[in-house]
Amino acid sequence: MYQMTPPKGMRDFLPGEKALRDVIASRIREAYTDSGFTEIETSIIEHLDNLTGGDGGENTKLIYKILKRGEKFDEAMAKENAGENDLSDLGLRFDFTLPLTRFYANNRNELPQVFKSIQMGTVFRGERPQKGRFRAFTQCDVDVIGDPTPLAEIEILNAAIKALSAIGLNDFEILISDRRFLLAIIAASGLPADRADEVCISLDKMDKIGKDGVLAELKEKGLDGSDLLSKIEKLHFDDIAEYSAEAHENLQSVLRAFSSPPQPLSSESAFTPKFRFEPTLVRGMGYYTSTIFEIYSPKYGSALGGGGRYDKMIGKICGTDAPAAGFSIGFERICDLLGEEYKNRFSRQEKTAVLISDPSEYAEALQFANAEQCTASIFVKKKKLGKQLQNLENEGFTKYYDVTKKEYLSRHS
Amino acid sequence: MYQMTPPKGMRDFLPGEKALRDVIASRIREAYTDSGFTEIETSIIEHLDNLTGGDGGENTKLIYKILKRGEKFDEAMAKENAGENDLSDLGLRFDFTLPLTRFYANNRNELPQVFKSIQMGTVFRGERPQKGRFRAFTQCDVDVIGDPTPLAEIEILNAAIKALSAIGLNDFEILISDRRFLLAIIAASGLPADRADEVCISLDKMDKIGKDGVLAELKEKGLDGSDLLSKIEKLHFDDIAEYSAEAHENLQSVLRAFSSPPQPLSSESAFTPKFRFEPTLVRGMGYYTSTIFEIYSPKYGSALGGGGRYDKMIGKICGTDAPAAGFSIGFERICDLLGEEYKNRFSRQEKTAVLISDPSEYAEALQFANAEQCTASIFVKKKKLGKQLQNLENEGFTKYYDVTKKEYLSRHS
Repeated sequence: MYQMTPPKGMRDFLPGEKALRDVIASRIREAYTDSGFTEIETSIIEHLDNLTGGDGGENTKLIYKILKRGEKFDEAMAKENAGENDLSDLGLRFDFTLPLTRFYANNRNELPQVFKSIQMGTVFRGERPQKGRFRAFTQCDVDVIGDPTPLAEIEILNAAIKALSAIGLNDFEILISDRRFLLAIIAASGLPADRADEVCISLDKMDKIGKDGVLAELKEKGLDGSDLLSKIEKLHFDDIAEYSAEAHENLQSVLRAFSSPPQPLSSESAFTPKFRFEPTLVRGMGYYTSTIFEIYSPKYGSALGGGGRYDKMIGKICGTDAPAAGFSIGFERICDLLGEEYKNRFSRQEKTAVLISDPSEYAEALQFANAEQCTASIFVKKKKLGKQLQNLENEGFTKYYDVTKKEYLSRHS
Repeated sequence: MYQMTPPKGMRDFLPGEKALRDVIASRIREAYTDSGFTEIETSIIEHLDNLTGGDGGENTKLIYKILKRGEKFDEAMAKENAGENDLSDLGLRFDFTLPLTRFYANNRNELPQVFKSIQMGTVFRGERPQKGRFRAFTQCDVDVIGDPTPLAEIEILNAAIKALSAIGLNDFEILISDRRFLLAIIAASGLPADRADEVCISLDKMDKIGKDGVLAELKEKGLDGSDLLSKIEKLHFDDIAEYSAEAHENLQSVLRAFSSPPQPLSSESAFTPKFRFEPTLVRGMGYYTSTIFEIYSPKYGSALGGGGRYDKMIGKICGTDAPAAGFSIGFERICDLLGEEYKNRFSRQEKTAVLISDPSEYAEALQFANAEQCTASIFVKKKKLGKQLQNLENEGFTKYYDVTKKEYLSRHS
């Protein structure tokens, strides 16, 4: 049966929505590019083994798997108790990090020693649909591969700041921490090292459920978090060194790089990014190894993006270690936040409707339209001209040229 | 097992390839937009029933089907002799025409009465891989829905001409014909109407196998094509009217619209498009109803794109008829053709490498990089500076600034 709406969790974009998304995407792309990153494109369809074999965590449960075809399908079905993984060896990418590591492993010899990449495109996750969550969505990532120094984090953060600023968002804070510090303070608080992940999951909820909530949740898990939380409460930035000298030094380098106000990026967006060391920052993905950060907008009460360093992932996958750090912008959330503001800012471009009365005027209309210095579109003039002009105005047309009369019409003529 | 190359028939794009593709795509997009078309985006994942229920012909055999998940998967597997279509209810789009008709049906009330759409993006077909054929590839389509007059064909052809011209291709011919004429001349040649499709398939090969080849192929099918081919051989443009007055009038309107040289689009691309009525033009898709066209490059011996009018498709799918015509550019072929030429044209943008010797210089390097009027990227200076500068030059850097010395370095210093 024919269905008119997109599949559940999927979306189409009308011309206005598409234009808005493209303006935002192209400003992000330009800011990333200006910061020395170069764009690549990886395949939307990936080897299923690659997708399930990495550190994708919960996301691997959400993979869209592609059915084998022809003989391969028949063979798989002939198996007793054939399961999903017998019937499929390809899947849709659920993020850009796994495809990037494959890309890097495959093209290492053709890439610069320090490779600064941009990836922008659609990723797919079969999540339970809910407001603001989609099963296909756009991600805009920057990554630096091959640089073990804090310069990687610094350039990524600089690109992220520039990108957000370029789309008119500059009222944000950058929360920053280090996984090594986090693991060390958990261990120093008498909590078992092999349950650090569980501790982190609770700690991550601090901003939602508060200190008492975190303590209660840890207690349910049979863990006493009181020492950890009191250590965190009393913590000053330089105390980090007690737990991890490397984390302290690394964070200090990053913060110092941004200590002076950056050059004004444009008149409307000159600002100093505010950094805040946030000891309870966790960031979900299991593959982060040291620096982690999140850009948070107090104005919108929402994270705008985040990332961190993942030095072990490439080695795990392709045998040879390569240090890496990345940042992903929350594109869909940003489109939501900026929707209304941008609609008013971008809709006022010149657009000419070229009106004809008779087929004999096609050639002349075409010549006129092609000579216009703006977008021009040809229409057959209707009897109810006033109504037609009103409709064209609603579609965004600003000028109306009558080929028969050889003159521009006034909207109110 | 981890695999480093993309799945068979899929591709990744390195920075240089990606930049080339983006330049070509954005020039096409701009030409389409200038011609009054507006871009939309449709879901990559479609209802499988929609994909298989239309006039997709051979392409429906090449659909990538997505495996059902969870309970729906278990239910399907519990069926006796469960087949591909029990295990899947979603698939990846294989062209833009089917998604466009669904989009139009779903959003009709929010779209202009005459809707001029652009769609650009990736489509998927599980074809047997061969040189120059991929399983995921980019399409760039324009369509006009809601206009029954030749203005639809005229605006589509104008947008196509502008797009090709904008990417430096203007040495081409536009082959044009009409399905109604083709069916009428087949019938008038004593061939059975219910086998017209088979006749068309052979006729379509005229440029490859010649008149004798076509006759032989028809003979194999038990059909005598001699009268048809001799009619075609003697045919002049105005004879079309004998077979279909509508086709003749329609084609005449289109040709007249382009009869005078169009306004020069830019100094390097002023040219008059050459139209040629081509009685043996068929175009594969079953859904075309009247005008069909193909843009052919004698220089490259290759079609650059094609399209036609498909007035019945929307009605068949969503119940209410809407006249429609579309054009699709051969993006992948064009990227192949232009690859080398473009590489030389687009690689000479300014790009600064900002070199530091010590972590204490991060802040200063960042300030300098952000103030540069071009792309700037920061690097730690290496001992073998000459080698490093050589590598940076190979990566496309044109200027080298030494933060410690506070001066630009000469490449040969």
